[in-house]
Amino acid sequence: MNVRIAVAGASGYAGGELLRLLLAHPDVEIGALTAGGNAGSKLGEHQPHLLPLADRVLEETTAEVLAGHDVVFLALPHGHSAAIAAQLDAGVLVVDCGADHRLTDADAWDRWYGGDYAGHWPYGLPELPGARENLRHATRVAVPGCYPTVSSLALAPAMALVEPEVVVVAVSGTSGAGKSLKPNLLGSEVMGSLSAYGVGGAHRHTPEITQNLSAAAGKLVAVSFTPVLAPLPRGILATCSAQLIDPAADVRGAYEKAYADEPFVHLLPEGRWPTTAAVLGSNAVQLQVTVDADLGRLVVVAAIDNLTKGTAGAAVQSMNIALGLPETTGLSTVGVAP
Amino acid sequence: MNVRIAVAGASGYAGGELLRLLLAHPDVEIGALTAGGNAGSKLGEHQPHLLPLADRVLEETTAEVLAGHDVVFLALPHGHSAAIAAQLDAGVLVVDCGADHRLTDADAWDRWYGGDYAGHWPYGLPELPGARENLRHATRVAVPGCYPTVSSLALAPAMALVEPEVVVVAVSGTSGAGKSLKPNLLGSEVMGSLSAYGVGGAHRHTPEITQNLSAAAGKLVAVSFTPVLAPLPRGILATCSAQLIDPAADVRGAYEKAYADEPFVHLLPEGRWPTTAAVLGSNAVQLQVTVDADLGRLVVVAAIDNLTKGTAGAAVQSMNIALGLPETTGLSTVGVAP
Amino acid sequence: MNVRIAVAGASGYAGGELLRLLLAHPDVEIGALTAGGNAGSKLGEHQPHLLPLADRVLEETTAEVLAGHDVVFLALPHGHSAAIAAQLDAGVLVVDCGADHRLTDADAWDRWYGGDYAGHWPYGLPELPGARENLRHATRVAVPGCYPTVSSLALAPAMALVEPEVVVVAVSGTSGAGKSLKPNLLGSEVMGSLSAYGVGGAHRHTPEITQNLSAAAGKLVAVSFTPVLAPLPRGILATCSAQLIDPAADVRGAYEKAYADEPFVHLLPEGRWPTTAAVLGSNAVQLQVTVDADLGRLVVVAAIDNLTKGTAGAAVQSMNIALGLPETTGLSTVGVAP
Amino acid sequence: MNVRIAVAGASGYAGGELLRLLLAHPDVEIGALTAGGNAGSKLGEHQPHLLPLADRVLEETTAEVLAGHDVVFLALPHGHSAAIAAQLDAGVLVVDCGADHRLTDADAWDRWYGGDYAGHWPYGLPELPGARENLRHATRVAVPGCYPTVSSLALAPAMALVEPEVVVVAVSGTSGAGKSLKPNLLGSEVMGSLSAYGVGGAHRHTPEITQNLSAAAGKLVAVSFTPVLAPLPRGILATCSAQLIDPAADVRGAYEKAYADEPFVHLLPEGRWPTTAAVLGSNAVQLQVTVDADLGRLVVVAAIDNLTKGTAGAAVQSMNIALGLPETTGLSTVGVAP
Repeated sequence: MNVRIAVAGASGYAGGELLRLLLAHPDVEIGALTAGGNAGSKLGEHQPHLLPLADRVLEETTAEVLAGHDVVFLALPHGHSAAIAAQLDAGVLVVDCGADHRLTDADAWDRWYGGDYAGHWPYGLPELPGARENLRHATRVAVPGCYPTVSSLALAPAMALVEPEVVVVAVSGTSGAGKSLKPNLLGSEVMGSLSAYGVGGAHRHTPEITQNLSAAAGKLVAVSFTPVLAPLPRGILATCSAQLIDPAADVRGAYEKAYADEPFVHLLPEGRWPTTAAVLGSNAVQLQVTVDADLGRLVVVAAIDNLTKGTAGAAVQSMNIALGLPETTGLSTVGVAP
Repeated sequence: MNVRIAVAGASGYAGGELLRLLLAHPDVEIGALTAGGNAGSKLGEHQPHLLPLADRVLEETTAEVLAGHDVVFLALPHGHSAAIAAQLDAGVLVVDCGADHRLTDADAWDRWYGGDYAGHWPYGLPELPGARENLRHATRVAVPGCYPTVSSLALAPAMALVEPEVVVVAVSGTSGAGKSLKPNLLGSEVMGSLSAYGVGGAHRHTPEITQNLSAAAGKLVAVSFTPVLAPLPRGILATCSAQLIDPAADVRGAYEKAYADEPFVHLLPEGRWPTTAAVLGSNAVQLQVTVDADLGRLVVVAAIDNLTKGTAGAAVQSMNIALGLPETTGLSTVGVAP
Repeated sequence: MNVRIAVAGASGYAGGELLRLLLAHPDVEIGALTAGGNAGSKLGEHQPHLLPLADRVLEETTAEVLAGHDVVFLALPHGHSAAIAAQLDAGVLVVDCGADHRLTDADAWDRWYGGDYAGHWPYGLPELPGARENLRHATRVAVPGCYPTVSSLALAPAMALVEPEVVVVAVSGTSGAGKSLKPNLLGSEVMGSLSAYGVGGAHRHTPEITQNLSAAAGKLVAVSFTPVLAPLPRGILATCSAQLIDPAADVRGAYEKAYADEPFVHLLPEGRWPTTAAVLGSNAVQLQVTVDADLGRLVVVAAIDNLTKGTAGAAVQSMNIALGLPETTGLSTVGVAP
Repeated sequence: MNVRIAVAGASGYAGGELLRLLLAHPDVEIGALTAGGNAGSKLGEHQPHLLPLADRVLEETTAEVLAGHDVVFLALPHGHSAAIAAQLDAGVLVVDCGADHRLTDADAWDRWYGGDYAGHWPYGLPELPGARENLRHATRVAVPGCYPTVSSLALAPAMALVEPEVVVVAVSGTSGAGKSLKPNLLGSEVMGSLSAYGVGGAHRHTPEITQNLSAAAGKLVAVSFTPVLAPLPRGILATCSAQLIDPAADVRGAYEKAYADEPFVHLLPEGRWPTTAAVLGSNAVQLQVTVDADLGRLVVVAAIDNLTKGTAGAAVQSMNIALGLPETTGLSTVGVAP
């Protein structure tokens, strides 16, 4: 099989990670690479780690340039994908790494993002109940946000066992914020420092986590979500907790059952805890569950690479499913450590 | 005033930070410095940043060596302070940076630490209700743990306003783990990685947080506490939350009132959030509060330097109070950033 | 003594470090704080670590605002200090942290910086031969660049003993590059990475190092200088080497003699090597010398904090000398480690 | 082709990187994994990033266990490989990541390592003149040290053009030091710090660099080598310089010619400089050359991943050559960035 792909937004972090993975994908041929402000320059100036593509020139992000590919990956600021997708042939697989088509509720979109609601697409988190089926033969895929990915995988298997009030504190590396030139993202500011942001339910990933966990619970779940920025480029470690309805519930069994056949989600042996280094550059999710016996509270810790399973890896995994390729093609569960 | 002090455990991180602060304290004369395995070597080999003391030779940690000082700081593994203190003159101020005398409940001691319970000493967190009074003229002080310090200061003012179930996820630099030669503390392991430990209520600081918050609430508080290790040497950022009894409560007012006269605790102006870099090397606590309006949940984020306000700064602050010196002598609210 | 000072460029890294040090200086009262684009905002927004000054409003950088102080510190982009200084009373001490008045050679200025040459001022590196005398009663001071500081102190004592060809490779934290919003200074780019820049004699500090070492040698010295950027906020470690004329020369003796009475320059005991952590936030220089016996080559390793001894500490030290205060007032040799 | 391999020292960093690469190698089947003190435990406890091998039990490092494989990789402390190799069938390919068989001079071995000299094996740096030929059909391979790899590739093409005196300052991440439990390798010590070690020609890689460059020059080359430790897990950036015999020599042409056909060595386009992030986890070498026109001095900056091209990647590359596989099989030139 020879799948011809294009990447819009190839000079950013999500675009770079897509290309890193696609270069190793045996069934893919890399076509057009586009950018916004960086159009006209060579990819090597922006992605010096992608040596085989160093001399490729970035084109303008237009439907004309993106046309003629089997798959188009969009790694663009939110609000841009619907217009592009509308101009592409209906049979083209469009995989959107942005937020535009994640939320199923128009009011939620209006509140959290604003602008026209463009509708929701099949959701690229196949490990959630029902999601994989929706991705088969899909021609449009909404790749989840990085925090919703790790939080939803950490808690979904337990939602039938806990009260519908969960607390998620997720510590992230800085690449999740993209290449934005903001003072608080300078190396001098982030190294040696920790900070919280979007506190009190202000982060745009909150409604997406709520949507996923409510679907898993079958009822509205209250999600208290706080992201914390830490001094590392990649990785998210999420600490998630909720009160157990029955403190004696077989929590571990629920996770074992949920993920027994999942190639990328790994419940660690008891006594071992996830680290983000162990999943760096890989599409793996490592998680561990325990019960705080004093409180009857479930605590789950999960680690992903925000750029891989949290973005580009999920995009490739979704593409594999949509195209009928083996789901793990071109994706690894082996991290780059130390 | 000329206070002659000794430091037991001078080659470790807590000991080093004590000496860094005491070198800048105008009323202090530095006497004996002791160590365990490092006795006999020069301080400069272990603490190259303490240039003025580089040639001081570390002595054995014995009561004989520590006798004859006005203040003895103990920075030892737990289980060692009671025996030392018993051999020192009753009038000597003993400031214990270890855990031995923090817990007021013998059963809690037995469960979390084991061995003989040595009783509790006045608690060196003067910003908690009643604590400052207990420290005046004290001759024994138990310095709080670093996580209890930040968590208790973050939540104590709100305990009358929230349900007695709190969730604390505190991200810490590595110096809190001391100089222990453990593989998971190697630079190659911690840089570029995040990990949780002591999950599910397994960390020994849990009962101390519970003790403090229950005292503030006037009833038993359920504390879900998870510490996370992040790649920086110093600093703790704690994200603390609890359901408000009345979502419209004047939460900010409660914090303003609690800390209006506190020299080291700073509620930031609305819209600004704490970072650990801003308190590096200082005795300051920076915190911000908000209410998640969708959930009616209080969220507090607080930052300290675990070695300063979290350990050695609290020890010096407590000494100042106990000796009747101005409380801020030798301590700064100015961090070393970037 | 009560010295009233102003800082121009207070929202940047050099300005922030000046204020951190000046807050601890017993003889200083902090007057006007000015900025460029940040004028009108509060200092706390830009320097959250300077709690005592958090509510101070930044004013425009004009001679009117800066007038009426005893000392004016300039932490501005190069090319701005001469015009400001010309408008200030001749008796005001102007301490320029920029490059404008460092080079003694107009042609060198023209080549490396361009624009009008504004002449050279007494050079704020008192540990160099003759420099301290020039600073006494000075009303204008040019603070050295951070790389020239560490390189010159590392090699000056040996210049009579070596061939006039030196190689300096200096590894630096990122704060030396300031708060510029450049992609290569983003945390995601610098963490986990090393890079060289200004290679092949292209860095503007090259002529300043050449000037200092040539003065020390009494003849023109060829300086091969390469700066390397490493993932830490502060600190420079310079590795400097040159061929010894006589391999048996008493190199160590030369350094001991040169720095015996210097309060901030510390030749470490044999067998111990400098680290930047040991000087973090301090005005100390730690250095060690050795001879590669196979090559007859001197190798010197020196560490400073680029923002302290490399910039703001040198500025305060120079102010102390110019005003006749004890040279070490308000400055520490104790680093913040770990 | 199905090559059955064993790895001795599988719980260390070099062993882990070997396995990470070998898991992605299409022609390899992973057989016995052995360890010293960690024998009997599961690999997952030591290498949590190698999920597919998590349950493999580490065996004792004995010739019996290692027998019966086509290739045996040794990632052991120096002094151990000769005895093991002697017990293995002569037809087995033994690839030694240690130092035992790198030096061609018995006296150098005696001086730098001591103990019995075990002779030299074909040297696993195929990009050096003649090296690739020696590796074809070899059954014993000595993998170069990480510093010699980057230094030799940086300077070898220019050795005919420069004076035989070179200066190399190489900044390295911490994984090069292995998992040794030394205080100076603790995260708290290395983060936020820079240090030099083995200064003055004291590092054991000095004779190996000298050997390589002298071979390239056809005469004895004086090598001044200083390694610097920086706060990152992986990566070496080497700054290498030497006086040009003729300042107008076509330096760039020499490098273009030397590496035109090398799949892993990339001379960057003019104006771009190497970073270690760009080669993280890859087998690529990125380098850039320039001439300091004022000095007539060549300066070369080169970046590798010390664990990949610096150790395990070179081992796999050498295996490929020795076995007649395509040289790049299982190896990538794509780094993991940011």
